[in-house]
Amino acid sequence: MRISKLVGERLKEASSAANVKSHNFLLRAGFLKQVCNGIFSLLSPAQLVSLKIQNIIREEMNKVDGQEVLFPVIMPKEMWEKSGRYYSIGQEMVRFKDRNDHDMLLGMTHEEAAVHLCQNTIKSYDQLPFMIYQIQTKFRDEARPRAGLIRVREFTMKDAYSFHYDKEELKKYYQKVFDAYVRIFKRIGMKNFIAVKSDSGMMGGDVSHEFMLLSDIGEDSLVVCPHCDYKANMEVATSMEEKPVFKDEDLQEVFTGKAKTIDEVCQEMSIKPEQTIKAVCYAMVGDDKNTVVVFIRGDKEVNEAKLKRVLGKDVAVKDLSETGFVKGNIGCVDLKLPNTKILYDNSLQNLCGMVTGANKEEYHLKGVNVSRDLKAEQFYDLAKVKENERCPVCGKPVEIKRGIEIGNIFQLGTKYTKAMDMTIAMPDGSLANPLMACYGIGVGRALASVAEESCDEKGLVWPMSIAPWQVYLCPLRLDNEKVKEEAEKLEKQLQEKFEVLYDDRNVSAGVKLTDSELMGIPIRVVISPRSLENRQAEITIRKTGEKIMTELDKVEKTIKTIIEEQMGELCGK
Amino acid sequence: MRISKLVGERLKEASSAANVKSHNFLLRAGFLKQVCNGIFSLLSPAQLVSLKIQNIIREEMNKVDGQEVLFPVIMPKEMWEKSGRYYSIGQEMVRFKDRNDHDMLLGMTHEEAAVHLCQNTIKSYDQLPFMIYQIQTKFRDEARPRAGLIRVREFTMKDAYSFHYDKEELKKYYQKVFDAYVRIFKRIGMKNFIAVKSDSGMMGGDVSHEFMLLSDIGEDSLVVCPHCDYKANMEVATSMEEKPVFKDEDLQEVFTGKAKTIDEVCQEMSIKPEQTIKAVCYAMVGDDKNTVVVFIRGDKEVNEAKLKRVLGKDVAVKDLSETGFVKGNIGCVDLKLPNTKILYDNSLQNLCGMVTGANKEEYHLKGVNVSRDLKAEQFYDLAKVKENERCPVCGKPVEIKRGIEIGNIFQLGTKYTKAMDMTIAMPDGSLANPLMACYGIGVGRALASVAEESCDEKGLVWPMSIAPWQVYLCPLRLDNEKVKEEAEKLEKQLQEKFEVLYDDRNVSAGVKLTDSELMGIPIRVVISPRSLENRQAEITIRKTGEKIMTELDKVEKTIKTIIEEQMGELCGK
Repeated sequence: MRISKLVGERLKEASSAANVKSHNFLLRAGFLKQVCNGIFSLLSPAQLVSLKIQNIIREEMNKVDGQEVLFPVIMPKEMWEKSGRYYSIGQEMVRFKDRNDHDMLLGMTHEEAAVHLCQNTIKSYDQLPFMIYQIQTKFRDEARPRAGLIRVREFTMKDAYSFHYDKEELKKYYQKVFDAYVRIFKRIGMKNFIAVKSDSGMMGGDVSHEFMLLSDIGEDSLVVCPHCDYKANMEVATSMEEKPVFKDEDLQEVFTGKAKTIDEVCQEMSIKPEQTIKAVCYAMVGDDKNTVVVFIRGDKEVNEAKLKRVLGKDVAVKDLSETGFVKGNIGCVDLKLPNTKILYDNSLQNLCGMVTGANKEEYHLKGVNVSRDLKAEQFYDLAKVKENERCPVCGKPVEIKRGIEIGNIFQLGTKYTKAMDMTIAMPDGSLANPLMACYGIGVGRALASVAEESCDEKGLVWPMSIAPWQVYLCPLRLDNEKVKEEAEKLEKQLQEKFEVLYDDRNVSAGVKLTDSELMGIPIRVVISPRSLENRQAEITIRKTGEKIMTELDKVEKTIKTIIEEQMGELCGK
Repeated sequence: MRISKLVGERLKEASSAANVKSHNFLLRAGFLKQVCNGIFSLLSPAQLVSLKIQNIIREEMNKVDGQEVLFPVIMPKEMWEKSGRYYSIGQEMVRFKDRNDHDMLLGMTHEEAAVHLCQNTIKSYDQLPFMIYQIQTKFRDEARPRAGLIRVREFTMKDAYSFHYDKEELKKYYQKVFDAYVRIFKRIGMKNFIAVKSDSGMMGGDVSHEFMLLSDIGEDSLVVCPHCDYKANMEVATSMEEKPVFKDEDLQEVFTGKAKTIDEVCQEMSIKPEQTIKAVCYAMVGDDKNTVVVFIRGDKEVNEAKLKRVLGKDVAVKDLSETGFVKGNIGCVDLKLPNTKILYDNSLQNLCGMVTGANKEEYHLKGVNVSRDLKAEQFYDLAKVKENERCPVCGKPVEIKRGIEIGNIFQLGTKYTKAMDMTIAMPDGSLANPLMACYGIGVGRALASVAEESCDEKGLVWPMSIAPWQVYLCPLRLDNEKVKEEAEKLEKQLQEKFEVLYDDRNVSAGVKLTDSELMGIPIRVVISPRSLENRQAEITIRKTGEKIMTELDKVEKTIKTIIEEQMGELCGK
């Protein structure tokens, strides 16, 4: 490829909206162009990276006996009514009517299509296990697209579905794909990634894992134990309880005046937040009438993902005006209001000597004994884990990290095969719903995540395995006949062995060198009037900055060695 | 791949709806599953064929310096308003509102997106020419999907867009892509295909070609001259006129009673259809009021594509009730009705002694002299070409054939760059809209077209270049330990060199051999207790039926030779 004809500009600055490194560099290096909110066109360099990532995914899926198929993007409502998801999924799913007034949708995921494909063609347990996968465009109408390709509305995704006749065998295969995922992320050049236990969300099922690239720009909070193997998404993370012990007293009303927040009450009463019980009020989405009140220790925060699972419904913070609640003085003793659902967090169990609101203006209660004063029939795990809480496995302090979700895998069980009535004959002749698991990787997000992790102040630094080109051939002073002749000879020679981007522009050395760094091509070969005096070329390794002066006739060999070394590192060799 | 785990059944019969060979075999061989009208899932064998076709297309596009990019499937209304196509394209285009109530659409083609991508990044004539292409899912809400993958609603398409600064250079590049298309179709194994001049339709522009696979199931009629190079889609085909000469007479009313159709009138008056002038009445879509009357010689048919171009509007046959027209007696002399637009076909020019309706019940006029009696200011080319009419180039009789459209290429001119205001600096410093051309190939239709052309009574016959697997390894009597051992040894050995589908089922020889033929795998290797007595395998070439008995240790070499031979043929070697 010659850069003069390559569509896409290299820019000094990106738009101010691109405040994430990968987004900024991908825009500035001519990889992306935004079409509208959360929708991008990929220019050729990005598409070349994407195709390489796809091929690595394909190879690893084929290694675990995956069969590549292609499901339709557009599906009829009926298919999704069977699974119930036509109604349970919200606005992220695009629905429309076709020309014959049939309800159609854009598939965000393809469990239904996978069951449809296998139903009636797979009839017996001995045809299992198998896995089918596809690499395809998906559209999810995200409320808040952000960070370039990290969170978009339209993206290319690999989604895979495996079918099993018993749980043991499902677990074994799930682990095989888990291992394949580790290989994929390593091969595409990711470094700091981990797998965490996760929430199954709209997929259903019970066991699931997310692969997370650790990154400050990640949207997910992760609880990671540095002492043992415990790693979980905040949405499902737990910790060992450490109960503070306070003196058991009688209940007593205390005048607290204008003190409303936990901090204000603590200051007023000279206590610490862990001696308070706070109320956090929610509305269930689609339900204007009822209020959900979560009582939780004052030093803790409610984990809305956990609350959502307990309620089986989406929640939003409730506006308390016109509800009868005394804002800032809501308390867990004798709270009696109509249309109120009360939940107690585990952190409250067995506490005494606590402070809570008195359910009247300007007063709190002290001496609350949870066992004595609350009518709590059940406590739930509703709290977020905090830094340094004790690991639920080994009991040592955990760390909180941020991560970008780069892949997810779910054990679905029979949720879809049951709903869609797919059965297979078992060894004893009986009919059973097969078990399923599913496995996703977003290709564009993987591209952006690698870009985010592998870059420096000068620009992108593509891993050799997925670089759009391996070599940036960069002659300086193309107005010099000798340089031009040697450069074109080298272009022809190198193109036969490697992927070469040839900088054929008559622009300054500064522009050329800066562009090569911004675009992140792993190997740069510079020839100039000066280097040609000794019949040499200067080879620079983007990743390390290392420079190697090489005889012209050894350039090919040197490049080959660098490529082999870098590819070896990516495969863990 | 082992066939026991391959998702997809081989069937004795397909559903009765599959009355086209390719559709029938693709269903029966386990390549396709229908999701709903015009929407299919591709099972692994079909996806493997599709990927090979995509790679051949990719290679040939890259050879003509194409840059692979990826446009979004979903685009905002605004982009398509600029080109005017948001309104001019009908129900085939899916439109919907996103969660923020923005109007969005599913792209059927990507001229707008291509201009958007290049606009502002391509600034000067010396960055041209270039071509960008993508391979992507498209959805067109076809009114009448048919014939399996031949005409569907959702499909994978390669669409390419080139940009040029002058017409000469555009033509030169257009020819390069034309040649690349010929190579693509040859390489994927198509035999009887031709390129014809075509109608530019919704794309706009003036010069365009369609690549057509000649086939009885084709939807397009093609006019082909066997004597010279003339080939055109019926929609744009012309022929040299041969004017019949009749005696010039005075106008005279003739009682024709109930004779209404051309045949009835000819019988009543003992004349031939070419002595009559018939009226064909149309409504313009979206216009209930006006009637378009086309007068044309009685032996000819109206070409609605041509009529549409003359009117600039879609047409439908008009219901004449409540219009004042005397159905069956409409004539071209003194037809005076309000809200009527009259068009005359070229075939009428200079005729005399003709018969037409008298515009009153039970009467026709004879002795019509077109120059004398008609107020025709202009004649148009509105007729369909018929078999044996004279070629417009060489004058010899043409043939009419049917074809499946397998690709199309268009010279678009400045239609889109002008509408979207994309300009480049020209050598003289002025700004100009660049010229464009676009180039499409439907991957699924290519797959189905090859299947349609390359099959026999036993099933599919895949060309080596796109076969899902090259080798069908088919041991008979797997209950025989010796067979099993040798088969698995052979599987391991062959898999390292070739793409192998291993039939590991314990089923009858008949089932295995029939399945291998139905699936159309190019090379079948059979080993059986008998063949192993001589340490031999029987190799069968699907295409020719040729059988070769080979020593076990020469199987690999024989396969290699067959593959090389067949691949050589496909590249025209």
